[in-house]
Parts: sequence; structure tokens; C-alpha cells
Amino acid sequence: MEVFPADQIADMHETALRILQELGVKVLLPEARNIFAKAGARVDADSEMVYIGRDMVEAAVASAPKSIACRAGARQRDFTLELGSLVFQPGAGAPNATDLVRGRRPATGQDYLEFLKLTHHFDVFQMISPQVEPQDVPTPLRHYFTTQAQMELTDKFPFFFSRGTPQVMDCFEMLTTARGLSDDEFRTHPHSYTIINTNSPRTLDIPMAQGLIDFARHGQMSIITPFTLMGAMAPITVAGAITLSHAEALAALTLTQLARPGAPVCYGTFTSNVDMKSGAPAFGTPSHFQASLAAGQLARHLGLPWRSAAGSASNINDVQAANENQFGLWGCLMAGATVIIHSAGWLEGGLTVSFEKLVCDAEVLNMVAELCTGAQAGEAEIGFDTALSEVEPSGHFFASSQTMDRYNTEFYEPHVHDYANFGTWAERGSLDANSRATGVWKEILANFQPPEQNSDQIGALKDFIAKRTEEGGAPPES
Amino acid sequence: MEVFPADQIADMHETALRILQELGVKVLLPEARNIFAKAGARVDADSEMVYIGRDMVEAAVASAPKSIACRAGARQRDFTLELGSLVFQPGAGAPNATDLVRGRRPATGQDYLEFLKLTHHFDVFQMISPQVEPQDVPTPLRHYFTTQAQMELTDKFPFFFSRGTPQVMDCFEMLTTARGLSDDEFRTHPHSYTIINTNSPRTLDIPMAQGLIDFARHGQMSIITPFTLMGAMAPITVAGAITLSHAEALAALTLTQLARPGAPVCYGTFTSNVDMKSGAPAFGTPSHFQASLAAGQLARHLGLPWRSAAGSASNINDVQAANENQFGLWGCLMAGATVIIHSAGWLEGGLTVSFEKLVCDAEVLNMVAELCTGAQAGEAEIGFDTALSEVEPSGHFFASSQTMDRYNTEFYEPHVHDYANFGTWAERGSLDANSRATGVWKEILANFQPPEQNSDQIGALKDFIAKRTEEGGAPPES
Repeated sequence: MEVFPADQIADMHETALRILQELGVKVLLPEARNIFAKAGARVDADSEMVYIGRDMVEAAVASAPKSIACRAGARQRDFTLELGSLVFQPGAGAPNATDLVRGRRPATGQDYLEFLKLTHHFDVFQMISPQVEPQDVPTPLRHYFTTQAQMELTDKFPFFFSRGTPQVMDCFEMLTTARGLSDDEFRTHPHSYTIINTNSPRTLDIPMAQGLIDFARHGQMSIITPFTLMGAMAPITVAGAITLSHAEALAALTLTQLARPGAPVCYGTFTSNVDMKSGAPAFGTPSHFQASLAAGQLARHLGLPWRSAAGSASNINDVQAANENQFGLWGCLMAGATVIIHSAGWLEGGLTVSFEKLVCDAEVLNMVAELCTGAQAGEAEIGFDTALSEVEPSGHFFASSQTMDRYNTEFYEPHVHDYANFGTWAERGSLDANSRATGVWKEILANFQPPEQNSDQIGALKDFIAKRTEEGGAPPES
Repeated sequence: MEVFPADQIADMHETALRILQELGVKVLLPEARNIFAKAGARVDADSEMVYIGRDMVEAAVASAPKSIACRAGARQRDFTLELGSLVFQPGAGAPNATDLVRGRRPATGQDYLEFLKLTHHFDVFQMISPQVEPQDVPTPLRHYFTTQAQMELTDKFPFFFSRGTPQVMDCFEMLTTARGLSDDEFRTHPHSYTIINTNSPRTLDIPMAQGLIDFARHGQMSIITPFTLMGAMAPITVAGAITLSHAEALAALTLTQLARPGAPVCYGTFTSNVDMKSGAPAFGTPSHFQASLAAGQLARHLGLPWRSAAGSASNINDVQAANENQFGLWGCLMAGATVIIHSAGWLEGGLTVSFEKLVCDAEVLNMVAELCTGAQAGEAEIGFDTALSEVEPSGHFFASSQTMDRYNTEFYEPHVHDYANFGTWAERGSLDANSRATGVWKEILANFQPPEQNSDQIGALKDFIAKRTEEGGAPPES
């Protein structure tokens, strides 16, 4: 679905190129400025501004892969990112966790592990996202904790933060060790990804620029996501905000291709609006929806796989949270997003991830996935002989041949939605979906089974972590 | 959006014609059987079966109007139903009402009046629906109560039940009296509508058949809606259920056109699935979504305006209720439905309408309406000079020229969603959307102002009602 006519999309692309060439981007990392300068960009060392010509951008777009084969920990977990494919991630990056049992609190290592298990459990999530910050784990050691957890508890596609080269190199080493990858295997396909947020407007900070370079050089994937709020860090209009986001994404994408032509990189945006009365961010709004549509048009203009996002500004897992998340989700779906992040669990505009909301949103994602499998209307499905002509007027189809053949498999079976009538539901305790979701996540965690491991490789991973921990780890860079 | 390829849709249409011709439809009203017989259909008086040939159906489809200009109580409330237009109705037909203040109860006249005021309040609803049954009003007088309320409290397009000719004639008389319509004005355009549910499978009962005839003869609109649950009153497959629904809709539509060629009639469907474990109806499911898509394809096959439905099986206004209703709503929207009923407030698969859910769902509908207004990406919106080049890297756009010009009007303003951060929200009492919605409907009702009336006409309406009440009213027929 489109929001703007093709000529306006072309104007937005042209304006983005003009932004990069005339207004420039502030790049805080000297190494990144050097890369741009070497490739012929005009760089002002004092102001740290980089002015990127359209030829350089167009060459980068041409060398960026249109299709990215992502390798997970098991072949059945692999997936390909390209226009037309669809991958979900749960909500990510929150400092807090919440659930109905333990309340809202700064997230801990235990929360991180539990969210990871839930993400592994639901087949609809194909990528691991950093759902919460394990704040009780010291920052120089946190990447050991999160990487070990991802290697031990799931074989889905893992995520690493870009918090400086030392941490990133540690993560790559842990990944190749735990998954038994040769250097060549590792570099040929992405086995991990990072998310790169620009500091809108028009700033690329040190760890983000370093991450783009490090991931590109090692053949690992960057998902570039300018996070822009219309009326705050971006123009108040959808067109202006997405033009800015597009310019920033192109700048970051260009850096990856200068670092290593052909490096796997995913275009992205996350643009919603603020509430102009309070300045507070809003999600799942009409403007958010239109921004997804516009970004999708620009991604197709480039021909690249791209990421969009759902999410909610609500403070608890309530009707607002459900409605905002699903509204934003349909924006992403109708925009043709390749990766949809924050598709489950995100509250407070990303300050908290909720256990119950994750379970409830996963229901919606499962229903979308079920829709994607399609339906048939052949002779057997229309069923003139096996259903329609078998039942008398005002009769029922419970016992028709067609029903008997299909009753176990025809319909989607929910994990948290409840179809009991009011009386039965009341007898069972009048539990709302939120309360039932508590039971769902508790049961998943209680019955969790990690995937099979190679114990030698995991042993080597643990040895590496022990050694690096003893050495003091690697503090994040900023 | 389509779920089936065109050839399969054609097969479904052909199978529906075959159902009508070979299997037939049971028509309980002798007058309706006579109309079919006179037009050449084969009728078996003993079994009450009518076998309708394809020529008769095709002639009816050809004479049914493709565009229906609906006249409300004020010209600015008029609307046209045709493929491509979109009209919302709140949830309808429930025996119960619920809200957080008064709890769940059998609906009363007061509930009917309050829901009517809420429907009048929200611009997104263009049609009045019979949201709840005022069970404390005796059935022979109930249509006086509901009609007087619709004439006095709103100038939107009114609804009348088809519960026998005497009640329908009373309603037409009250409508023309209250709105000062000449007989000719009344018959030239629909000024009211009814909803016709078939008794699936393949049965048309007495009041429904009578309603089709009465509304057609008076130029008033029937919305034909076979209400079929896959696996229960309809085949278990989407293809089978929609084929049956299509056949029943065509039979009813044919009756309207035989009664008066060119009579305004709206094609429709409401098809979801049951839970095969319990037999309970489910709504907002993948099958429900696909059924809407299939019905939309068949409506376009006929070229007629058509009605679909959202709705929820949840027992309270919770996350399930929100997710089901919105999921079903997107099914209707992507199917290109002309009228979307049960788009707000419906719980328990239609057994209850909730005041809070109506308010919460209206937020989603308002956001959809806002989306439909579109967005621009001209020079002013992209804003290279008025926004993008005015702000330094890492700056903000709060004070850019473009923002200053637009901050009051650029974004959708919610009536129940809350963007306050967690601290502010907690200080204000940690109210979830459901609780805030109570405040919203209370305020709407407290400040309600009915539209301007012609006091002579309303006086005449009251006189008519007094006279008919003295005469004992008109009991519903069944």
C-alpha cells in the first residue's frame, strides 16, 4: 500500500540526497570520517561534518545486497531477508520489565533469560532481539552474559549491541566458538546482526559508526534504523520526517559499503509522532502508520530489504496497548516491511517490555502468520457434495463429511484468547486476557527445553568468558 | 485484497447458483413463495422449498442498484453506498449491556437511549444500529420507543427491525411524520434500513421474507446478511461457508428485486468460525478475516455495495476484545467492505454491547478515518527550507517554521488513548484505557445535545405513538 504518489517519493529521495550533499551529516568517529574522505567525500575535521555526494550514495545502494541469507544456529532456523519476505522480532531495548506477578522493575539478568526463552518458544519470532537490559550485570561483562544466553538457550538468529569494537570482537569470537564456525563460514553469511540508530537529526555517533564498520568488515548484518519522532527530532510532517530518516539511513548504508562493498545491510526506519501538547512520544497512530507506508515506498525505490516497527505508548498491557500495537503492525504489514521489530511486548514507547503483552501480541502475530498461509477454494473446499448438499435447510454441518475430515486442523487455535461463553468464563474466575497471559508465560518457562548443543563448543565458550571476565571484560564505548 | 484467485471466485458463484437451482431454499412466508412462483421459480408448497433459476438471479443482480443514495435527517448526514465507499456502524442486536459502573445486565430503554447518544456523538458512525434490545419496553410497543428515540436524539440514518408488516408500517409512518417526508420523497430514496439475516443453511423465515418485501416496496434499504459460522450452520471451510452465504444472499436479493425492481439492497455477509472443541463462536480470527476477503471478491463480482462485520468473542473489554475487533476490522477494510457493522462495542459474539468498548473501538475507527484523509509530500511537507535545513545536527524541530505552522493540526488527537509517561500516568491514578473510557462516555452523555427538530413534526409523531399505544401497539411476528 502506498501513501504518496511515485513522483513525490522520487522528490523525497532527491531531497535526501540533497541533505547529504548540501547540509551534511555529523560523524563523530574519526575512522568513519577517514573512510568517507578516502572515498572522496568532503569532510570538515573541525565541525566533524561529512558531505556525501550522490554518486557515492548510489554506488553504495547498488552494492548493498538485495537478498540476505541469514544463518542461525540450526538450518531450519535460517531465513532470507529480501523485499517480500516477513520476519518478526519482539520488542527490544527496554530498561524495564513488567508482569502481573512481580510488577514493573529495572530489568535483570533473570528477565533477560526469561524473555529469551519466550522468544525462542514462539515460532513466529525468527530473530532474537535484546528485549531488556540486564541491569544487574556489570556493563563490561554484560555482553558475555547476553551472548552466552543466546548461544545456550536458543538456536535462533542472535543480536549483538554495537558498543565499541572490543565488545563486538568478543561477541564474534563467542559466536564462532559456540557455533563451531570457521572464519570463512562466518564471513560468508551473516550469523548475527546489530541495530544502528542514528542520533537524529543528521548525527552518527562513535559506537554506531564503529558498529557499521565492524559488522560490515566481518560480513555481519547491520539493521539501520533512524529513530525519529515527528515534531521533535524530525520534521512534523510524515514527508519531512521520512525524508530525514531516509537521508540518515543512506549515510549509514554508504559507510557499510565503503567499509566492505556487498556487506549485508538492512534499510530501516522507526518514525512516529510526538503528542504536541506534552512532547511525549506516541505510537500506533495514523502518522506512524503513514510513515511506515512512506518508508516502504522508499525501500522499494532502493530495492532493499527493510525494517519497520510496531509498538505502543501505553503504560500497561491494556486495550490501548493492544490497539496501538496492532494498528502500527498493520501499518508495517501494508507497507510490506521485511522485518517488523517491537511487534510484541513493547510498552511505554520502549521503556518497558511486558511478559503478558508479549504473549498477547504473539497471538496477533500468529494469526497474521496463519493468514499468510492462505486458503483454498477448490472443489474439496467448496464442498458441494461433501457439505452443502448433505445438510437440510436449518440443519447443521457438525457431522458433514467435510467437517469430519477437517475439524482438527481447519481453524487457528489460540494460546490466550478464550471463546468460552460468559457463564463458563465467569465460573472459571472471570480472568481477562492479561491475567490468562500470566498463566501462559509461566507455563512456557516451566516447560522450557533449550535446543541441542555441542557441549565441547559451549565448554569452549564458557572458558573464553571466564578468561575475559578475569581480564576485566570490555567496557562499552560511547 | 484477495484470498482466492478469480477462477475460484467464479466457481464459488457458479456453485451458489447451483445450490439455488438444485438444492433450493426453504421460504416460510407464503407471500414470498408466491412471488417466486409468479416469476417462474419452481415451488413445492408442502416442503416450502423454492428452486431459483440462474436467469432470475442474474436479472435481480442486474436490476439491484450499484449505488444507493441514503437520506438521513439532515443533508450533511446523507451518504452513498457503493463499492469504494466506507461507512461504520457500532455493534448491534445485543440483549445485554455492560459498563464498569453498572455491570452486565439485560439491556433497558435507558441503555438504548444512551447508546444512541454515543452513536450520534461519534462522527465516524454514519448509520444508527440497534445496539441493544430495550428489554423493559413491551414488545408490541418497543418499535415506538426505538423510533421516537432515533427521531428525537439523532439525525443520522435510522434502523428498523423487520418484525412483521404491522411494525414496519408503523415505523415508516413515524419516520415520514417526524421528518416531514411526502410519500414520493420517502419512496424515491431510502430514508431507513433493516438487516435481514437468513436462517442458515438455506432458510428464509417469515419476518425476514416479509421485511425484504416491505422494505423493497417502499424503496427502503435491506442489508442482507447471512450470519454463518463455519463448522456449525455453514461448511467448515471459508470457501464452503462463503459459497453458502452467497447463495442465501442471492436468494434474498432476488426476492427484493421481484418485489420491486431497482429496490435498494445491500449485499452482505457475516461469517466467522466456531471453536471446534466447544462449538462456541469465535470472532476476529484468521478464518473470519479470510471470509471477509472472499465475500468482498464476490461483492465485486456482482458490482454491489456490501456489508461485512468486525466483532469479538471476549467476555469483557480487554486485550482479547481489542485484538479481535481490530483484526476483524482490518479484514473488512482490506476486503473493501462498504458498510462495517459491529465495528465498535460488541462483546461475547454479540450478546453484550459495552459502553467502554464502544469508546475504545471508536478510537481505532477514528484513526482509520484519519488515515483515509491521506497525507501529502509536496515541497511544503518535505520542508527542505522550512525544517530540514533550519535544524543543526542533534538539534530539535520543536521551533522550526514548519512545526510552528502545523503543531495544532498535524496529528490525530485521541479521546481515550493516553501518551503520558509512566510517572505522570501513575500520579493521575494509573487508569487503564478501560477505566478512562468510563469517563469519556459519562462526559459525552452529560453534555449531549440533540440535533435541531421540527417541533410540529415531533409533536405529530408523539400523537401517533399515543394513539397506537392506546390501540395496543403491534406485536412482533415470528
